[in-house]
Amino acid sequence: MKIQVINPNTTAAMTAKIGEAARAVAAPGTAIDAVQPSFGAPSIEGHHDDVWAAAGVAEQVRAGEAAGADAHVIACFGDPGLHAARELSRGPVIGVAEAAFHCASMLATGFSVVTTLTRTVVIAEHLVLHYGFERRCRGIHGTDIAVLELDDPASDAYARILASSREALIHDRSSAIVLGCAGMADLCRRLQGELGVPVIDGVAAGVKLAEGLVSLGLGTSKRGDYASPLPKVYAGLAAPYSPA
Amino acid sequence: MKIQVINPNTTAAMTAKIGEAARAVAAPGTAIDAVQPSFGAPSIEGHHDDVWAAAGVAEQVRAGEAAGADAHVIACFGDPGLHAARELSRGPVIGVAEAAFHCASMLATGFSVVTTLTRTVVIAEHLVLHYGFERRCRGIHGTDIAVLELDDPASDAYARILASSREALIHDRSSAIVLGCAGMADLCRRLQGELGVPVIDGVAAGVKLAEGLVSLGLGTSKRGDYASPLPKVYAGLAAPYSPA
Amino acid sequence: MKIQVINPNTTAAMTAKIGEAARAVAAPGTAIDAVQPSFGAPSIEGHHDDVWAAAGVAEQVRAGEAAGADAHVIACFGDPGLHAARELSRGPVIGVAEAAFHCASMLATGFSVVTTLTRTVVIAEHLVLHYGFERRCRGIHGTDIAVLELDDPASDAYARILASSREALIHDRSSAIVLGCAGMADLCRRLQGELGVPVIDGVAAGVKLAEGLVSLGLGTSKRGDYASPLPKVYAGLAAPYSPA
Amino acid sequence: MKIQVINPNTTAAMTAKIGEAARAVAAPGTAIDAVQPSFGAPSIEGHHDDVWAAAGVAEQVRAGEAAGADAHVIACFGDPGLHAARELSRGPVIGVAEAAFHCASMLATGFSVVTTLTRTVVIAEHLVLHYGFERRCRGIHGTDIAVLELDDPASDAYARILASSREALIHDRSSAIVLGCAGMADLCRRLQGELGVPVIDGVAAGVKLAEGLVSLGLGTSKRGDYASPLPKVYAGLAAPYSPA
Amino acid sequence: MKIQVINPNTTAAMTAKIGEAARAVAAPGTAIDAVQPSFGAPSIEGHHDDVWAAAGVAEQVRAGEAAGADAHVIACFGDPGLHAARELSRGPVIGVAEAAFHCASMLATGFSVVTTLTRTVVIAEHLVLHYGFERRCRGIHGTDIAVLELDDPASDAYARILASSREALIHDRSSAIVLGCAGMADLCRRLQGELGVPVIDGVAAGVKLAEGLVSLGLGTSKRGDYASPLPKVYAGLAAPYSPA
Amino acid sequence: MKIQVINPNTTAAMTAKIGEAARAVAAPGTAIDAVQPSFGAPSIEGHHDDVWAAAGVAEQVRAGEAAGADAHVIACFGDPGLHAARELSRGPVIGVAEAAFHCASMLATGFSVVTTLTRTVVIAEHLVLHYGFERRCRGIHGTDIAVLELDDPASDAYARILASSREALIHDRSSAIVLGCAGMADLCRRLQGELGVPVIDGVAAGVKLAEGLVSLGLGTSKRGDYASPLPKVYAGLAAPYSPA
Repeated sequence: MKIQVINPNTTAAMTAKIGEAARAVAAPGTAIDAVQPSFGAPSIEGHHDDVWAAAGVAEQVRAGEAAGADAHVIACFGDPGLHAARELSRGPVIGVAEAAFHCASMLATGFSVVTTLTRTVVIAEHLVLHYGFERRCRGIHGTDIAVLELDDPASDAYARILASSREALIHDRSSAIVLGCAGMADLCRRLQGELGVPVIDGVAAGVKLAEGLVSLGLGTSKRGDYASPLPKVYAGLAAPYSPA
Repeated sequence: MKIQVINPNTTAAMTAKIGEAARAVAAPGTAIDAVQPSFGAPSIEGHHDDVWAAAGVAEQVRAGEAAGADAHVIACFGDPGLHAARELSRGPVIGVAEAAFHCASMLATGFSVVTTLTRTVVIAEHLVLHYGFERRCRGIHGTDIAVLELDDPASDAYARILASSREALIHDRSSAIVLGCAGMADLCRRLQGELGVPVIDGVAAGVKLAEGLVSLGLGTSKRGDYASPLPKVYAGLAAPYSPA
Repeated sequence: MKIQVINPNTTAAMTAKIGEAARAVAAPGTAIDAVQPSFGAPSIEGHHDDVWAAAGVAEQVRAGEAAGADAHVIACFGDPGLHAARELSRGPVIGVAEAAFHCASMLATGFSVVTTLTRTVVIAEHLVLHYGFERRCRGIHGTDIAVLELDDPASDAYARILASSREALIHDRSSAIVLGCAGMADLCRRLQGELGVPVIDGVAAGVKLAEGLVSLGLGTSKRGDYASPLPKVYAGLAAPYSPA
Repeated sequence: MKIQVINPNTTAAMTAKIGEAARAVAAPGTAIDAVQPSFGAPSIEGHHDDVWAAAGVAEQVRAGEAAGADAHVIACFGDPGLHAARELSRGPVIGVAEAAFHCASMLATGFSVVTTLTRTVVIAEHLVLHYGFERRCRGIHGTDIAVLELDDPASDAYARILASSREALIHDRSSAIVLGCAGMADLCRRLQGELGVPVIDGVAAGVKLAEGLVSLGLGTSKRGDYASPLPKVYAGLAAPYSPA
Repeated sequence: MKIQVINPNTTAAMTAKIGEAARAVAAPGTAIDAVQPSFGAPSIEGHHDDVWAAAGVAEQVRAGEAAGADAHVIACFGDPGLHAARELSRGPVIGVAEAAFHCASMLATGFSVVTTLTRTVVIAEHLVLHYGFERRCRGIHGTDIAVLELDDPASDAYARILASSREALIHDRSSAIVLGCAGMADLCRRLQGELGVPVIDGVAAGVKLAEGLVSLGLGTSKRGDYASPLPKVYAGLAAPYSPA
Repeated sequence: MKIQVINPNTTAAMTAKIGEAARAVAAPGTAIDAVQPSFGAPSIEGHHDDVWAAAGVAEQVRAGEAAGADAHVIACFGDPGLHAARELSRGPVIGVAEAAFHCASMLATGFSVVTTLTRTVVIAEHLVLHYGFERRCRGIHGTDIAVLELDDPASDAYARILASSREALIHDRSSAIVLGCAGMADLCRRLQGELGVPVIDGVAAGVKLAEGLVSLGLGTSKRGDYASPLPKVYAGLAAPYSPA
């Protein structure tokens, strides 16, 4: 099985890290293809970054379909371009926010999200409602750590995420933590060990959900709004992305 | 006052029609600047079209800001790129779906939406929830008229929209009709005359809401998630759209 | 265009102040008719005051209709008698709470309300739900300033409203402030200047929404529950208000 | 114990019928005081009727308090003036719509409402949401029977209510019927016999709930928004109703 | 009238206390039959205790039906086995959580729950949603008092419940308190005296609601999911509980 | 990895069928242990059956924990005893209704459930709300096929399920079908082939979700309401199930 893991930003180091996180949990027969769009923002930290990330995800899903990917994981906590990606795909497409929410809600009656910039909290809130987790998600907490700071060994990012998680568990009366950034994938185990509750990284969760769905013979529904895009000729720089 | 009305698709005839609809309702001192992105789909009829439309809207809002627009109206019923546009704008940004919902809910306790392709109904449903109109909106009805068919004089589009509206009023026990496509702007008055209930076109509604907000000295909040995008260097074809 | 602005309480000084606030934002061709009921409470600070205000609003809408008003604004944050007023009116009827909520939600993903007596917070909560803004409105804060104290130059009302607004923005993670009393209309600009976020006064918002709807040829739906009241002979002191 | 049952309309025959319905279910020690306002509409069939009914209910609750009533039942399905009445009362105040909803939801996982004019269905919908029964109430059905027609022996009202109830049980997959008008109180037993499901009349339900609460020493909370109205001098025809 | 009050745990002292609380409020003609299951947990303080309590409640309802009970009250705040009990019963079945929520919401626009172990708060939250009180219930507060500690004269349970209630009224802006454990029934009056707001004990509330419904000739609907269980032969230790 | 799949009813043939369905999708290294309680109902078709099934599930989870199960799947569409099972387990516990809902919502924006007896539809509705899928689940359809009829080769159950699914897709405007009974597991592939949309069987879905969570090192949170049951001595026939 081939799972395409798409880092929607254009930072190759982060693509590599996400690819590693995905491979670390993939089943023996699963090949992970970690990719990033040919265009867009180096990190996704707001609505505008997200819009270009969505287009970038669509570019990669299209390429992944052509290359025979069985499923796609969108490895940014805003799940940019999720619905468009599903129009383009026969196999399942999983966003990492969605994946983490689904998994957390099977392990705890309430969970909290610890994320990066406070300004992105609203994006997560919108997703929580969109997916139906508004009662399971008891709080979303910005740490004001920049996405790319997560890769800086000199940063105290881990300590701040740990502290924010501890506070969230108490304040929200939660029983699990969802990591609100694909760049936090490598902190998951260590946090879980220190916090003593399930800590869910969406990249890992997304890979396992994708594997599960594919192995069940399940793919994206092609009836209704996820049917393939109507064939059209796009204009300008979008021309290469015209649906056939 | 200068209001930029953005047709998120790339069909110039539709931009012209939307511009006319906007000018028809604009106040004496209001200049309407009807524009369209330099790239994207000729009509927005699904999630993938919508993703590129969002990027196109962002392009135009940015240009509009530079050119001194006081407000922006996004003239496609999916309100593509609304949140990103607000990050980019000091003045108000209004989506036409949102505009129509707000206006309809001040005129009737329940309204129905009549839209184009059935596959886009889900997009409207997502917006209804996102904006909080899930109790006011009593039904969304696809007519399976293609967006560009609305401009074809040989089409029976008007008759089908009228029939669908009549049925919706009865079936949904609604008291007003929202037209679910910016391309229906010119049908509004005639439908209202025949149906005997308020018929709301989002383009007209959006222009008046934008005028109202601007004249009150109100603009998009720059605190929180609508703060200007963080400065970044975007890669590839998105490079020209890097936030400064 | 003639817009009737109804102060639902019987304090003439407040009617004058509200009229001024309305005129300050009205378009050149708009005449503002600021009125108050012939009966009722000098200020609306609870459910019982509200009941009589609703009857008073109905009295005035009826008179306004007879006098050719094109629209009506109900200038008390509880929107008393809104639905009844719409039964009586062909043109739009806008409550100032409703107006402020609609406008705030186009400028920010979350807003907070700062109001007068804490006991009225529940009334605002009921409206928020009724209109569908329960996710956009992130908090309602009583200042325990009496309505009529707002006109007392010796009062520290402004300072307390400012402080409460500042606290609300942080505590609720909000990006805009809605002023929860028609008597606060004159504080709006100053607060906006000091807070650096949109501050919405419902009176001004209501006038612009009314102007916009009227200029679009839109009025209250006369189908369904907003149809004119059935003709009946009312008894006792309500007799003059019998629907014809 | 003395329970004041308030018919919010001014039709004495209906007050008498409601009083009978209340007495038929009252406990041995309960005295029923069936009253009606000195002013208002002969039947409540819309928002405007409802506004005056609310004022009328407030008049009667005030009188009832003075006369030592232990509780109050508002016998109109729109529960007009409920919150104002509670401000005025130390004992419990129960609306018949509310009473019926509470009782129905203890007997069935889903119920349907059968009411009079279709134009009043929206009023019931607003109450259902306000009280939190939006998931238990599976449908509200107008029969277009005028309220006062219910007392006309020549009317086929009973047959139409029976037919509408039967259809509602099937269409809504409901298990109980709530009668949506205080004037239907006398039809309850017969309908229950023919339908084979619980049929709840709000007048009877309201009396028993009031008796129960009073006998438990429970009254309306005087903390918060149900505290007594602030003392004020009302103007005009409302002057006699000024809160002391 | 005979009301069976079922203590779902197996602690006879608590059954006696609950029986006393029920008798203290029962109408003259009402006989209270306080019972407990023949099996299960000595106190219900979690999901697993609750599962066995549900089976125990079913056992007792069945026995109560055979013995001619007119109604049943389930005297544990988790309302264990409520829906199963209704399948088994012709008369009404009332859970004490449900009873308290219904009563509180007729006395106050917002109430808080003060309960025993914090780990049971989630159970109460689930019930609040299930019954539709998620907007009326403004907070649920664990005191970490063990259920059986409530009967220990040396415990400071009363003081802690009082303190928690006081804090809840302020923090939640609530106007009434619901006691979140059937074992708190005897504290109700004293708390109400000290707090000055309605304090609702579900056992008392449940008895009065049951009396009211029975006296109205209302019982559990036998249409739909509350129809009698389909006759089956159960296996193993459940065999004696096979539906006939 | 060892996954315990618990058929909550006592029909050995159904346990075998469910075990087969589980094994058919299990990963190479996964051992499936298909079990059933030592007591309870031969099929779960109502609330009372469900109560005993919950106790039976708890019995088996406890045994499975002792025997080293890494995860547990509750193979009845009502997910009986789910929360109690999680108190008893370190590893994940997945209900098949929950599993199917999670998977369906990653493949389609709307799904319909086709289940057995109409009387069980309410149980599914309660779960849908409890888990947060009330917007994704567009309809639940009873076929009035008895659970055990699914195993009768002479039955026309398949044809009826197919017809009901087809109708549901159109009526609900859905894009996927969830099979509402663990006994339908073997029909899944065939239905998917004929319907052309994803058809989700909860048993298969539950096994893959369990595998995924276990392989990620994730288990049930032991903080909060899923902490191990407090040690207690249970009475009567429940004594063997006392938490240690």
